[in-house]
Amino acid sequence: MFESAEIGHSIDKDTFEAEVPALREALLEAQYELKQQSRFPVIVLINGVEGAGKGETVKLLNEWMDPRLIDVLTFDQQTDEELARPPAWRYWRALPPKGRMGVFFGNWYSQMIQGRVHGQFKDAVLDQAIAGAERLEQMLCDEGALVLKFWFHLSKKQMKARLKALRDDPLHSWRISPLDWQQSQTYDRFVRFGERVLRRTSRDFAPWHVIEGSDPYYRSLAVGRILLEGMQAALAVEPKGKSKSNVAPLGRSIDDLNLIGALDMTLRLEKKDYQEQLVTEQARLAGLLRHKHMRRHALVAVFEGNDAAGKGGAIRRVAAALDPRQYRIVPIAAPTEEERAQPYLWRFWRHIPALGKFTIFDRSWYGRVLVERVEGFCSPADWMRAYSEINDFEEQLSNAGVVVVKFWLAIDRQTQLERFEEREQIPFKRYKITEEDWRNRDKWDVYTEAVGDMVDRTSTEIAPWTLVEANDKRWARVKVLRTINDALEAAFAKHKK
Amino acid sequence: MFESAEIGHSIDKDTFEAEVPALREALLEAQYELKQQSRFPVIVLINGVEGAGKGETVKLLNEWMDPRLIDVLTFDQQTDEELARPPAWRYWRALPPKGRMGVFFGNWYSQMIQGRVHGQFKDAVLDQAIAGAERLEQMLCDEGALVLKFWFHLSKKQMKARLKALRDDPLHSWRISPLDWQQSQTYDRFVRFGERVLRRTSRDFAPWHVIEGSDPYYRSLAVGRILLEGMQAALAVEPKGKSKSNVAPLGRSIDDLNLIGALDMTLRLEKKDYQEQLVTEQARLAGLLRHKHMRRHALVAVFEGNDAAGKGGAIRRVAAALDPRQYRIVPIAAPTEEERAQPYLWRFWRHIPALGKFTIFDRSWYGRVLVERVEGFCSPADWMRAYSEINDFEEQLSNAGVVVVKFWLAIDRQTQLERFEEREQIPFKRYKITEEDWRNRDKWDVYTEAVGDMVDRTSTEIAPWTLVEANDKRWARVKVLRTINDALEAAFAKHKK
Repeated sequence: MFESAEIGHSIDKDTFEAEVPALREALLEAQYELKQQSRFPVIVLINGVEGAGKGETVKLLNEWMDPRLIDVLTFDQQTDEELARPPAWRYWRALPPKGRMGVFFGNWYSQMIQGRVHGQFKDAVLDQAIAGAERLEQMLCDEGALVLKFWFHLSKKQMKARLKALRDDPLHSWRISPLDWQQSQTYDRFVRFGERVLRRTSRDFAPWHVIEGSDPYYRSLAVGRILLEGMQAALAVEPKGKSKSNVAPLGRSIDDLNLIGALDMTLRLEKKDYQEQLVTEQARLAGLLRHKHMRRHALVAVFEGNDAAGKGGAIRRVAAALDPRQYRIVPIAAPTEEERAQPYLWRFWRHIPALGKFTIFDRSWYGRVLVERVEGFCSPADWMRAYSEINDFEEQLSNAGVVVVKFWLAIDRQTQLERFEEREQIPFKRYKITEEDWRNRDKWDVYTEAVGDMVDRTSTEIAPWTLVEANDKRWARVKVLRTINDALEAAFAKHKK
Repeated sequence: MFESAEIGHSIDKDTFEAEVPALREALLEAQYELKQQSRFPVIVLINGVEGAGKGETVKLLNEWMDPRLIDVLTFDQQTDEELARPPAWRYWRALPPKGRMGVFFGNWYSQMIQGRVHGQFKDAVLDQAIAGAERLEQMLCDEGALVLKFWFHLSKKQMKARLKALRDDPLHSWRISPLDWQQSQTYDRFVRFGERVLRRTSRDFAPWHVIEGSDPYYRSLAVGRILLEGMQAALAVEPKGKSKSNVAPLGRSIDDLNLIGALDMTLRLEKKDYQEQLVTEQARLAGLLRHKHMRRHALVAVFEGNDAAGKGGAIRRVAAALDPRQYRIVPIAAPTEEERAQPYLWRFWRHIPALGKFTIFDRSWYGRVLVERVEGFCSPADWMRAYSEINDFEEQLSNAGVVVVKFWLAIDRQTQLERFEEREQIPFKRYKITEEDWRNRDKWDVYTEAVGDMVDRTSTEIAPWTLVEANDKRWARVKVLRTINDALEAAFAKHKK
């Protein structure tokens, strides 16, 4: 895999200088066209052997191109903020929006290779990391991103010679970090595990490009050309929906039985019971969030449900138990311009709570498989793949200690009608009801089907759905609070074992 | 994930009997249309809880449909033949050809879930198996297959009740195997790890369908409908190339340096040296293949090269060392009709040697990224994804103990010209040279580029390419033999550690 990057590629100075002007111009043009179309981002990953010119090349690209449209990002030690969240959070927050280019140094690959080289884990764990990277990149590409991966390579001999030359040059010896010398010790392992990673993650949608790093003219021109060709090819693609062949439909229900229909909608609480239980559960939540184990967890509560099912009221009863500094409520409406320029999960990743914190999502990423599906805001291929993307997302949360509770507040059609009518009567509630609510009501059956598929495909052992019988608001509120409390207690209980 | 398959779905007998005739007719029609188009195979995976009616449902499908177009396959204990080959071999040999349906019981999922349930390995290894299954299914779908995955489910209570009912019924008690009782003990673990597998492998291209198994009418109708809808949707798709967006080109060489060009084509052996070394290496090979460690390995040698580079002669010198029962030579020409009805790697999987054996491929799976790429026999998306599919394939071989050696026999243009002309002069060699050879010669540069990409992307630590300077046939033959011997010795040496 690295053979042809060890044969001494080089370009003479004259050729280089003759080629660069046209290349620069074409790169700039592609960059502006990218900005103009704002249809996809370009993500450039920079990896490889120390001393192979990674930094210099990126520096040069910034000189050649318009640096205002490039974000160069280094990922070294995780910050406190990053350590308090799932590992991928740092990459999500740094994703370039559509129309821009992000250059990622020290990305997900660096971490997994270094970890394996230094024996922090074995091949099986490396392979889990590899599978995670594949899924992330697949998702990015499905969302339209152009992902270009460069591996800068030097043979062992070349690397040693280069480190030696730098050391002997007083003007450049400062460039060598202790890490570089360390890597010269671990070269063989680094290249061996690097090759494993490249072999597995070089996929048609995001192949690796191995660049011999010893000659600056060669490596700069090589990277510049690949970048240019990649951008030109992607810019030339017709912006249309992808045709996935043989995507099988999910299958319709063949009887009248479904989870929503199976709910006992007569469940209710008397006022006195409600008031007692509400106070009890609120006190329990307040206690749990102050529990020392909470430092190792975060809490995410997702509220979805029929229109007028009482999400707002339920959320208020949860919040009422807490100090406002402990939680955050994130209402999800139409995405902002900035959010539309990113993969659809981006706007939820940005609100993931740090350890110890609690975030309430009033509607959520499930919009993709609910309203976006039903209203045709995205293609069937897009919402079909969303189920597994969401499961991956929630798995990452769960692995990082985030307790994920998801509520579907269900009311029946008659109750909804009564509440709609009531809202139209009461002046201060009138803002709550719109034409759209009435239109959605006409789509009751398709929404019900979408909810069924959603629960079937995303209710998992790590992040189960809780269906809440919400015809009676009291019953619903207490059930929500109790479910959150039970989930937190279960998570805390694992620490005692 | 299993909630809605635990709520007691059932269909009454009258409804069932009223629905079945139309469903049967539509299924039969879809089956014949599938056969007619012969554009893709249907692969049905059957998994789930014991006692949930997996067997009965498949039996019924066979009654409803034309069983001549369905292959039902059970994978229980591996046979000796299967144990001597990579684990996936048993599935490859059983793949249904285009136009037919294969129903796989006890498939790759059964194995990984059982292994995890019984503690044979931990989550990280399970995740490796999951990633392998994903890659296999992605490849099958990219090759056009319709993959339908059914998980037959019962709640714990339902399963126990069903086993009890069977036991108490003298007519049916024989149906319960010791395994069934065992599974009732391990139900919780089985469902937990099953859910992990389903969550990870339910992808847009091959989603899982969870079927509640307690009511025979319900489960039969549910499976029949999903099967029908899946087939109808796939049959309706226009048979066209898939448009993958943002597939970046691999990048052109920017200098004149490449691995082929870097070969020292003047390398040669004098006749006397040749004869000595040839005999030595042949004896070495004969000894190695009789070595006791060979029982834990197999050997695959791939020969590719320029036309007239001397592949045949080199292969004969390898074979000359051996007892004909020890090796098999597989010449790869245009695929047969049977082979064209399968994924392109199928015709190589069928020839993978058992442990202890040696297979020589005279041309190989690399045709995909050489002739098929250059001549446009497959789309760019197809050969671009082939690199990683081939790497996956060779990794499976390597993991199973197969030593893979790959040779590119390189000659320069002038030498090829001389050999072509010589062949045209000599009557018994004339059959070796065709119009096509001359045409290929005109495409020298594009072939060279394809060879470069091939080596860059598939020369791996587990299956490296050896470039052979073949202007001198003697040099080439000895280098080939010596490389094979060195590779075998290196593999055997690992056992001593």
